[in-house]
Amino acid sequence: MKPKIDINCDLGESYGAFKIGNDAEIMPHITSANIACGFHAGDPMTMAQTVTLAKNYHVAIGAHPSFPDLIGFGRREMQLTQEEVKNYIIYQVSALQGFAEAARLTIQHVKPHGALYNMAVKDEELAQAIVDGVKTLNPNLMVFAQPKSALAKAAVKARLRVAYEFFADRTYNSYGSLVSRKQQAASIQNPQKVVERVINAITNRNVLAFNGETVKLGEVHTICVHGDNPAAVKLAKALRRGLEKAGIEVKPVGSFI
Amino acid sequence: MKPKIDINCDLGESYGAFKIGNDAEIMPHITSANIACGFHAGDPMTMAQTVTLAKNYHVAIGAHPSFPDLIGFGRREMQLTQEEVKNYIIYQVSALQGFAEAARLTIQHVKPHGALYNMAVKDEELAQAIVDGVKTLNPNLMVFAQPKSALAKAAVKARLRVAYEFFADRTYNSYGSLVSRKQQAASIQNPQKVVERVINAITNRNVLAFNGETVKLGEVHTICVHGDNPAAVKLAKALRRGLEKAGIEVKPVGSFI
Amino acid sequence: MKPKIDINCDLGESYGAFKIGNDAEIMPHITSANIACGFHAGDPMTMAQTVTLAKNYHVAIGAHPSFPDLIGFGRREMQLTQEEVKNYIIYQVSALQGFAEAARLTIQHVKPHGALYNMAVKDEELAQAIVDGVKTLNPNLMVFAQPKSALAKAAVKARLRVAYEFFADRTYNSYGSLVSRKQQAASIQNPQKVVERVINAITNRNVLAFNGETVKLGEVHTICVHGDNPAAVKLAKALRRGLEKAGIEVKPVGSFI
Amino acid sequence: MKPKIDINCDLGESYGAFKIGNDAEIMPHITSANIACGFHAGDPMTMAQTVTLAKNYHVAIGAHPSFPDLIGFGRREMQLTQEEVKNYIIYQVSALQGFAEAARLTIQHVKPHGALYNMAVKDEELAQAIVDGVKTLNPNLMVFAQPKSALAKAAVKARLRVAYEFFADRTYNSYGSLVSRKQQAASIQNPQKVVERVINAITNRNVLAFNGETVKLGEVHTICVHGDNPAAVKLAKALRRGLEKAGIEVKPVGSFI
Repeated sequence: MKPKIDINCDLGESYGAFKIGNDAEIMPHITSANIACGFHAGDPMTMAQTVTLAKNYHVAIGAHPSFPDLIGFGRREMQLTQEEVKNYIIYQVSALQGFAEAARLTIQHVKPHGALYNMAVKDEELAQAIVDGVKTLNPNLMVFAQPKSALAKAAVKARLRVAYEFFADRTYNSYGSLVSRKQQAASIQNPQKVVERVINAITNRNVLAFNGETVKLGEVHTICVHGDNPAAVKLAKALRRGLEKAGIEVKPVGSFI
Repeated sequence: MKPKIDINCDLGESYGAFKIGNDAEIMPHITSANIACGFHAGDPMTMAQTVTLAKNYHVAIGAHPSFPDLIGFGRREMQLTQEEVKNYIIYQVSALQGFAEAARLTIQHVKPHGALYNMAVKDEELAQAIVDGVKTLNPNLMVFAQPKSALAKAAVKARLRVAYEFFADRTYNSYGSLVSRKQQAASIQNPQKVVERVINAITNRNVLAFNGETVKLGEVHTICVHGDNPAAVKLAKALRRGLEKAGIEVKPVGSFI
Repeated sequence: MKPKIDINCDLGESYGAFKIGNDAEIMPHITSANIACGFHAGDPMTMAQTVTLAKNYHVAIGAHPSFPDLIGFGRREMQLTQEEVKNYIIYQVSALQGFAEAARLTIQHVKPHGALYNMAVKDEELAQAIVDGVKTLNPNLMVFAQPKSALAKAAVKARLRVAYEFFADRTYNSYGSLVSRKQQAASIQNPQKVVERVINAITNRNVLAFNGETVKLGEVHTICVHGDNPAAVKLAKALRRGLEKAGIEVKPVGSFI
Repeated sequence: MKPKIDINCDLGESYGAFKIGNDAEIMPHITSANIACGFHAGDPMTMAQTVTLAKNYHVAIGAHPSFPDLIGFGRREMQLTQEEVKNYIIYQVSALQGFAEAARLTIQHVKPHGALYNMAVKDEELAQAIVDGVKTLNPNLMVFAQPKSALAKAAVKARLRVAYEFFADRTYNSYGSLVSRKQQAASIQNPQKVVERVINAITNRNVLAFNGETVKLGEVHTICVHGDNPAAVKLAKALRRGLEKAGIEVKPVGSFI
């Protein structure tokens, strides 16, 4: 049997007249779309359009909930109670659910956005609150998480399906976290190198860290790519082609885990 | 068979630390709650709490979507496209749907809030957009509307169930609309008079207008009361008691139309 | 003495991570910048950066206040009270004033944005409220307005200086208003034609309307250009060069009226 | 010479239809008002009304800027860059400046709100950013801060005047910070006890901590009271009367430091 992989991307991150991303260009190359739900981006018009676009390309849809921080695009840490986080998750995911129903689609997954995602790597209470929100709403929803993260652990414990993520164009630290974007070496631009890294991550379940050490990843289910600039779109296209050439089947993660 | 009537009230209109209304006091006296969905009031915490409170009192829940105008509490007219209105309805109603599911409840109805409700009395395009949003989401949702309004007509045409509303404490013009709140005679405070008017509206399907004429109402399914001050709560209590004493059964409208 | 003209453009319309416009490209070609103040665009970081950019190019700064409608970019009509409009103007203009002071600059003018500008062409109460806000804050502030508009009249009556605007790339109706953007003929793209129209408007104080009639404009002080796409930047550049070639001095309007 | 003290209170914390506080009741008993500027509360209408109310009672006005978190009332920690904080301060303080000018008043001081205030007790970078914003805008503005806080130190270093605050109804830890509101012993309700504590703080410059130790405070310039419930208003009234009876002059801090 062929190995299988999903390619996911953050989409629907425009807000009214404010346009972000190249959704129409990236959509043909991915299999799962993380759709903004209004708290960091994604007004209702954008949500409706993005769901329709995803449907046209047979791309599975997921909710991409955030801290309520439009001005900071959800990238700034906030200290909320667990109850607040849980209810913010319910609000955002179910808002997207309406557009999914309107398009006769089902939401496949939930991937927290920005600071919410990053904090949930280590913050167990926050991770638990996210999982509580997801599970309360629908125990069939899948959670996208970094391997070994608090979010992954909380989701597993709650018997939610977890799709483990690998970041196609980001460098890793020796302990498995991503090198901070503030550092120059944070991202990899060379498409050929990106494809090789991803194939290695899928096949050998490890990644060469920034310091030269080999980091074990465990199973990888979905590859995160970016679509916010033309180069990123090209890279996604190259990645998909490279994976398929290597005999890896690229399809929505909900279909194989 | 006893005549039946529903009593509805706008609830869940707090927003974070900003507290509005006397939800816990009014809830025992009503049968349908119109719950704010975040655009004019109603943050996710408030939505969760209001749904739970409604459940405790066996009150049916409805969505109370608004124009996106927190600073104006949704009371100011806005000119939106039909597509915008439709998607704002979908967003808000489905956001509430998540909290309903979390509480194992079903949303009974949709009642537009403030300026959105008032404009939909006459504006046919707006009314159609609201109805499109509701029907796209769930054709079993009921719409609360004023008799003869554009909203009522559009809902009927779309084969949605419509609950016709009578306003317990508001005076009517001779052509069936409400006397503007800017006029002193806009509201009726005397509980006995309110009860008599409502019983008459239910039984005889008419109301004595401000100018002395008798205005035909047609069938009335739900009585709108207010809960934003202690006197309003008392009035609601008196109304329910008065109706029951008069042999009218008070229960959620979804159970009888 | 050479004739004089100002060229103005809406700038600072990004919002956090949401980037709009080509501010750095358009700035060298204009003499007055209308800077968003947070209600339709323009978070505090963007305001600070835009003021600094304007200073570097010796461009005069103005406030560009809007209805509070971020999701609609201030382009949707709202029905507010005069008191609300007045206070929203004070809030936004004085917020910009802080960044002006920080850069040791003075605000030259106020130009309402989007629907607020368009409604103030005819709505006398709205126009009066805008003027009240501006005058309350600082009677030396200049107002940008369309000739013959309610806004221009209210400002003149309040003894505020008014800069009459001509739209470089928009077609006019025979009664002096702009052809709606919904019509194909709303805008003129040919740079040569734009330059000729503007020179004619300055020199002969009229414009050839869409239907072939010649519309009197009265004196024109400032030309509105757009900077939201590369073609618009080119057009602004061509316009400035064409005006200077024709012996018209291009400088901030505050220096000559 | 009589000892002098200021009494300050957070005011103008309504937001449109959302009403908070008892501003009209508390205003007669205080000498400095901290006025919300739109980020956690305080829409432009409320700002205008609060400035007018303060003027009527000869109460000095100050800006009460916050993190941009309306839904959380500015009480939740956020991680912002120094540049963001500085610009948010400039935006909010200068927005209030407009209403001050409209009322022919001068802003006396800046007191950060909620989480921004609490974090600035220890976070030196944040404190510096606040001070940078204030000083950039107007070096004559006074800063309200807790004794020994990072904010006080940064303000002193920047040669801004600092008014040291004592909290009338809050208990202190032995190292001078406030007992967390999450603990039952956080607040003192007995008016007599509050008055005694405040007089002691002013006269002897210390406070009896929760654990029985005496904590040195240094000079105290302003007493913070609350006005968000009827009991708080009574307490403020009792405090002012008690202080005056004890021969302490109660007046705006800007007049004596």
